[in-house]
Amino acid sequence: MIYLDNNATTMVAPEIKKQLYEACDIWGNASSMHESGRLANKAITEARNSVASLIGANSDEIMFTSGATEANNTVLNIPEGGRILVSKVEHPSIIETCKFLLSKGREVEFIDVDSSGIIRLDEYEKQLKKGGVSLCSVMAANNESGAIQPFKEACALAHKYGSLFHTDATQAIGKVDIDVHKDNIDYLSLSGHKFYAPKGCGALYINSSSPFNTFMHGGHQEQGKRAGTYNTTAIYGLGLAADLVMKEGSEERERLWSLREYLREGIEKTIDDISINSPQDMKQCLPGTLNVSFPGAEGESILLLLDNKGICVSTGSACATGSLEPSYVLLAQGIPVESAHGSIRFSLGRYNTKEEIDYVIEVLPSIISRLRAWSTRKK
Amino acid sequence: MIYLDNNATTMVAPEIKKQLYEACDIWGNASSMHESGRLANKAITEARNSVASLIGANSDEIMFTSGATEANNTVLNIPEGGRILVSKVEHPSIIETCKFLLSKGREVEFIDVDSSGIIRLDEYEKQLKKGGVSLCSVMAANNESGAIQPFKEACALAHKYGSLFHTDATQAIGKVDIDVHKDNIDYLSLSGHKFYAPKGCGALYINSSSPFNTFMHGGHQEQGKRAGTYNTTAIYGLGLAADLVMKEGSEERERLWSLREYLREGIEKTIDDISINSPQDMKQCLPGTLNVSFPGAEGESILLLLDNKGICVSTGSACATGSLEPSYVLLAQGIPVESAHGSIRFSLGRYNTKEEIDYVIEVLPSIISRLRAWSTRKK
Repeated sequence: MIYLDNNATTMVAPEIKKQLYEACDIWGNASSMHESGRLANKAITEARNSVASLIGANSDEIMFTSGATEANNTVLNIPEGGRILVSKVEHPSIIETCKFLLSKGREVEFIDVDSSGIIRLDEYEKQLKKGGVSLCSVMAANNESGAIQPFKEACALAHKYGSLFHTDATQAIGKVDIDVHKDNIDYLSLSGHKFYAPKGCGALYINSSSPFNTFMHGGHQEQGKRAGTYNTTAIYGLGLAADLVMKEGSEERERLWSLREYLREGIEKTIDDISINSPQDMKQCLPGTLNVSFPGAEGESILLLLDNKGICVSTGSACATGSLEPSYVLLAQGIPVESAHGSIRFSLGRYNTKEEIDYVIEVLPSIISRLRAWSTRKK
Repeated sequence: MIYLDNNATTMVAPEIKKQLYEACDIWGNASSMHESGRLANKAITEARNSVASLIGANSDEIMFTSGATEANNTVLNIPEGGRILVSKVEHPSIIETCKFLLSKGREVEFIDVDSSGIIRLDEYEKQLKKGGVSLCSVMAANNESGAIQPFKEACALAHKYGSLFHTDATQAIGKVDIDVHKDNIDYLSLSGHKFYAPKGCGALYINSSSPFNTFMHGGHQEQGKRAGTYNTTAIYGLGLAADLVMKEGSEERERLWSLREYLREGIEKTIDDISINSPQDMKQCLPGTLNVSFPGAEGESILLLLDNKGICVSTGSACATGSLEPSYVLLAQGIPVESAHGSIRFSLGRYNTKEEIDYVIEVLPSIISRLRAWSTRKK
């Protein structure tokens, strides 16, 4: 299996998997006072330190959650009133929560992006200037296009106009430099399974001087901020993954970008009439993400025929699977409906090789021409 | 280590742990359409069937959550208005969520329990008669005292007066017979880590004809009811644990009750002036739970000295750790503050043996007399 869907999820790193299995003594309830609880608590403390280091936070500013969706729901729940600004290309866990808040009478503005999928800071500032904004949420990088957002500028603007600022860094961790204290960010969401940790665990960074409101009520866990028995194993895994990312440094990013460029060139050389929906500058794009439109071929059909060849890709967000609508992210970029329908996201990760990309380039052209021929016949 | 804190959490069953490790191919995103996603989706479908069978539900009535805390938060979020009735001894994830709703102007009634810790159905019905109740939540069994609640009667009464009914079955799974369709229950919460599944996964049963409101907004997962990438490994583990419970049957309950009675008799024989805070009838008490007060000794000190001997017990809910208040559960039973402060919860599980109980009975008397002597000196 050639797995090119690393923005949907990643496998647990083999070294982490091994350590998790060996860490068989940390099944206690971390809130328990006895030895079994203390062991679990120690593992969680280590993980908290690692995750804090990864983003330049203090350990007591890290709150573990069940994932980024919960972290995003939590953040949007913080301001008791005021307007909320988000980009039009945020993840469904932001967009849908905002739509829910809208239905409850809250004012939410969805800010346009340009043709590269990058938020229009001019429109964003125009909305801020109108006043009354309590929270801005701009993702660090987009899951579908790979576009890296100007979240540091968006943060500075939010603060200039008295708003709090959140960034969903789910896709950016390990791929974009983020230092929450230096960048003066109030809240940041991340999810372990996007960088080789187990599923079921993410974190919300909450700046120690920023306000907070509990989303998940109950026990005293997480300084009273988030109830629920600690998911110790997954938290421990998240810490190990944070350590791996910090050790890895920027070399892996260069490797991924080269591999992504090799794939793009291969596609451009062998298939006519395509368009690239991802930014073409490494400073503006996640290194492993390449979103391509193949007009005249349906994305879902391409996906299934590639799957038949053992290649895993996606047509967009896994969280939007089941929807027959074209990607709202690509539409927001101004990409025509037909191109959006014919788009494929390749998202490369740590375990992908040049040989795998060669194979993709080998099988993709005939899949596209077959589908295009079929679609022409249909017409 | 002698682990007698199985109501706080249980270890992952060794056979489940092994299967989880072997199930290395199920790390895909279950929402993905390709092979990797389909494998994950298949594992989740199997788990859903198992969990549904365990409680007599249909598979499409099972919604996986990050645990019972999330399930409980979700349920209390369902009714848009109306009064809420809960017992005074519900888990913090019910009590604190109700207090939050109260602070937002909702009417919540906390119903008294009797001296055995069992809800006063007369008071409960009196409140129902007053009218306007939209949701009643009565746990199946209490985590601290082990008291099994008359949740079937509470459910029938709720329906008689036009209210929906939820039961938090976190402690009851595998120990109390529950058939959600036969018992006509609208909602039921459960948590895997209380019955030998991994942490980080629970479920909410939602009767197909009962209303629902989303708590966690975002992706289309769980028929659009609960967003967030599927925690496939933990969900798979939850399914395996459900299978184990169904295979185990009632024999294990009998074994646990015998062991618990052996412990109680041992304590009563060797230590003066104690009181049992758990019901003394197996029909009214979780088979492995024994809550005992040792007046004149502080619960926390007993816990730490037992811990020193390698024995893990608790003073109450792990979710309340850090609180210096005596247990609200025991106080609601009318137990005096001093006795509540001097209480220990022993909660036995699948891997406990008679030899372990012998050791507890051997070391406990001297711990209690030492602490009592010290407390007398302090006075």
